Amino acid sequence: MDNSLVQEGVDAVEEILLASIDSEVELLNEASRHILTSGGKRLRPQVAFLAYLAVGGSDPLEAAPMAAAIEMVHTATLVHDDINDHSLVRRGRPAVHARWGRTFALLTGDYMFTKVYQLMAPYGNPYNGIMANACSELVEGETLQAAAAKAGAIDRETYKRIVSLKTASLFEAAARMGAMMGGGNEQVVEALAEYGYNLGIAFQVVDDILDIVGDPDALGKPVGTDVVQGRGAFVAQNGRTIMSLQTSGEAVAEAVATFDDDDPIKRMMSKLRESGAIELARLQAQEVALRARNALEAVPPSPARDELEALVDLVLDRNR
Amino acid sequence: MDNSLVQEGVDAVEEILLASIDSEVELLNEASRHILTSGGKRLRPQVAFLAYLAVGGSDPLEAAPMAAAIEMVHTATLVHDDINDHSLVRRGRPAVHARWGRTFALLTGDYMFTKVYQLMAPYGNPYNGIMANACSELVEGETLQAAAAKAGAIDRETYKRIVSLKTASLFEAAARMGAMMGGGNEQVVEALAEYGYNLGIAFQVVDDILDIVGDPDALGKPVGTDVVQGRGAFVAQNGRTIMSLQTSGEAVAEAVATFDDDDPIKRMMSKLRESGAIELARLQAQEVALRARNALEAVPPSPARDELEALVDLVLDRNR
Repeated sequence: MDNSLVQEGVDAVEEILLASIDSEVELLNEASRHILTSGGKRLRPQVAFLAYLAVGGSDPLEAAPMAAAIEMVHTATLVHDDINDHSLVRRGRPAVHARWGRTFALLTGDYMFTKVYQLMAPYGNPYNGIMANACSELVEGETLQAAAAKAGAIDRETYKRIVSLKTASLFEAAARMGAMMGGGNEQVVEALAEYGYNLGIAFQVVDDILDIVGDPDALGKPVGTDVVQGRGAFVAQNGRTIMSLQTSGEAVAEAVATFDDDDPIKRMMSKLRESGAIELARLQAQEVALRARNALEAVPPSPARDELEALVDLVLDRNR
Repeated sequence: MDNSLVQEGVDAVEEILLASIDSEVELLNEASRHILTSGGKRLRPQVAFLAYLAVGGSDPLEAAPMAAAIEMVHTATLVHDDINDHSLVRRGRPAVHARWGRTFALLTGDYMFTKVYQLMAPYGNPYNGIMANACSELVEGETLQAAAAKAGAIDRETYKRIVSLKTASLFEAAARMGAMMGGGNEQVVEALAEYGYNLGIAFQVVDDILDIVGDPDALGKPVGTDVVQGRGAFVAQNGRTIMSLQTSGEAVAEAVATFDDDDPIKRMMSKLRESGAIELARLQAQEVALRARNALEAVPPSPARDELEALVDLVLDRNR
């Protein structure tokens, strides 16, 4: 039952995302559509809708523009990230900058960010402030990550700050706003926000693991690029092996695409796999996942709460 | 009297701009401060405050966060523009990307955009929607401009659309929101919005003229880059001369910096100056400036209205 309501919400998100891309400048529509229709998991909107339903909200369409705005933030970030990381492939398609060039990719990301605020404007406060803060933290996380990658070194505390800012904040905002719109009381809103935050961290740690041991076909992008660029640092610094390796993103993408046994990146990744770093990272993902599950104890039982719990396992066990 | 209130508002804008840049990521603060303290004219905030005062608003501090947000949009755009245009100097200082690199400049612009929405959030609707729309149009204008520059051709209609979207929209939003916050009735709000829109167009046409005949020292940036990159197109297409010249932004910046008599860019610019195109552009700037002045007729006389009128001449006669 909740499932069909979530599906109704996610369907509405798809429509809203595409309808909001209605520029008189066709290039912006094309480039935005290219990335928006590339098969994102819509995980953040699902979190928003489930939090909404878990507190007794009954009309997911009420939360749909917000959930679409959350997904739009995430997608805009991917466009700018791929420019900065020189990543040429995203979700099995050419990255926006690979297809339209860097200038138009930068502008497409900017355009999508403006759509976030157009979608959020009708909600008024405090929603606009929550969204703006999450976006600000996201950019801070990206910046810390770029600085760490450039420095070629990262410690565990910095990694946690990065993941907290760049990924967990947006998951938290999705859960918090969903719960608020559904009419949850303060205690339950905070519990769901904490759930979202920890789910976000677990999601990112698993993401970093998949970058090393994942299947490129399932992921729709090459593996190894994150870690070699000094991202995926949770795993890397557990493995204490990689950070001295400095190379340009494009060189990496090329190297990973042409993997062979003598490839230094392949050797490095094998070494990392054998170091036990990945198992350690998995344990750490499970630990934060447990915190997400525990946060749900303050939420009254419901099919939506069950779904939120199931989502934790899905995030841990995913292969894409 | 209005002057001191405007000054009070602009002073508040300076404080708000710097206070809003309070990231735990020091690089974002430094890079944002670098561009925010580089001596911008704060013309858009002045328009916002004068529109506010012209309708009877009495406390400019009420409009100050909005005016700061308007200036923040403009400044964030400069950071991203300079990346895309390979412009190395801005207001007599290194461009953000020239000093911190492209990745951090892109993120600094993104960060500043998030501050826009943080500043606007407390106002609620309809202000958040007006600001989001202006931002969206601004990005559309930049995109059209980049597309025209890439195509190496532009007609007058396209140029007008570009200027309307990328420059006039934000001036219009500043005037409109100022007038709304000051309590103006619908007719006066529309009149001031029209004033802002036309003032913005005049401002941009003069900007394009200054790129050709301006003094690089007064401008704080080299001249000639806009027009060679296929921007400043109003003048260029009046002169029917330049658009076939294709070269990279960096090459242009270098060439302009090392001007000598045999320089093809210098020759081209001389030709353009002699073609009468600049005089024609000046007439066109005067025409839209007249529309801005006429719009003020629907606004009751006041010192603030006089200031708005004086601002038109200032925009036309400026040398920076």
